[in-house]
Amino acid sequence: MPKLWNETVEEHRRAVRDAILDATARLIASDGLRAVTMSQVATETGIGRATLYKYFPDVEAVLLAWHERQVHAHVDHLAKVRDREGTPVERLRAVLEAYASIAHERHGDELAGLLHRGEHVARAHGHLHGIIRDLLDEGARGGAIRRDVATDELASYCLHALTAAGGLRGKAAVRRLVAVTLTGLRPEDSAGRSAPVE
Amino acid sequence: MPKLWNETVEEHRRAVRDAILDATARLIASDGLRAVTMSQVATETGIGRATLYKYFPDVEAVLLAWHERQVHAHVDHLAKVRDREGTPVERLRAVLEAYASIAHERHGDELAGLLHRGEHVARAHGHLHGIIRDLLDEGARGGAIRRDVATDELASYCLHALTAAGGLRGKAAVRRLVAVTLTGLRPEDSAGRSAPVE
Repeated sequence: MPKLWNETVEEHRRAVRDAILDATARLIASDGLRAVTMSQVATETGIGRATLYKYFPDVEAVLLAWHERQVHAHVDHLAKVRDREGTPVERLRAVLEAYASIAHERHGDELAGLLHRGEHVARAHGHLHGIIRDLLDEGARGGAIRRDVATDELASYCLHALTAAGGLRGKAAVRRLVAVTLTGLRPEDSAGRSAPVE
Repeated sequence: MPKLWNETVEEHRRAVRDAILDATARLIASDGLRAVTMSQVATETGIGRATLYKYFPDVEAVLLAWHERQVHAHVDHLAKVRDREGTPVERLRAVLEAYASIAHERHGDELAGLLHRGEHVARAHGHLHGIIRDLLDEGARGGAIRRDVATDELASYCLHALTAAGGLRGKAAVRRLVAVTLTGLRPEDSAGRSAPVE
């Protein structure tokens, strides 16, 4: 039964790979991205260096795989937050707060910034943009979101504004940033104001 | 009169340096940052390669000096825009539009992104943050800008939101981005709303 055998091998490889990335995550959390070496990863995973090299050619490949897994987990998390109960704006607020928290935690990690140029990040970013735009579309249909600017542009505004979370101190500041960003999405009110009174 | 002699030498050096950076700017405009070489810069400036190397050790140093001059010019321009006549919010809008236009034009320039990590950029960014925060303070005192969030945080929100201009097509889209960003700065209106109706 070669098929089953292959499946077992594949499962085993996936389990080892996951264990390697879990170990990498622990090393990054304790010593930072730049400190991670292949020897450390092997030791922390509990495998030999030779085995590790069968999975990843170098430490950059390990870090990239770890980062891809992280980004996937973030997008999954944000999609789950989107699917909670609530009005479009409530769900939008929840997604923006979750995203801002991620941006907040990422602060100061230079190497993460470099990894960020990867294709998987561009894909995840596109996915996230779509999640936010869909919520904005729903909100605009219900009259809770401004209609004078395309939701594509509003989604891009949200994502950029929330990167300010990286420089903020404390979760209260992150919530304030989300509140300010949401204010920008308000429809013109009955007085026709769409910008601060001059 | 050694002092006068030194001044003349210093003036000459500055003129040559400016001519080198002007030539660099022309080369960047026509072929892009990555294409610039020391030979091209020397030819375009109308000086010998040996002379060029007395001013800059390599092409990275030329590009860095060019970029420093650019960033200074941008900050000077924004400070002039700030000093125009108008209410704080009008002046804020003008500064934000000028900044967003700069962010818009910079789009897609990878090497510029790398240069952007320099210290001179951090200083310029701090300066710009101060310009915007001061206008926000004025506006908040007059009741045109929200007071529930510190102007330091609001300035950071503005600068990050406007980086979205880099991905926008057309000046109308940039103006819409500025309008949305300004809406985020609105004080709560009489109905006490500070976020989209839910």
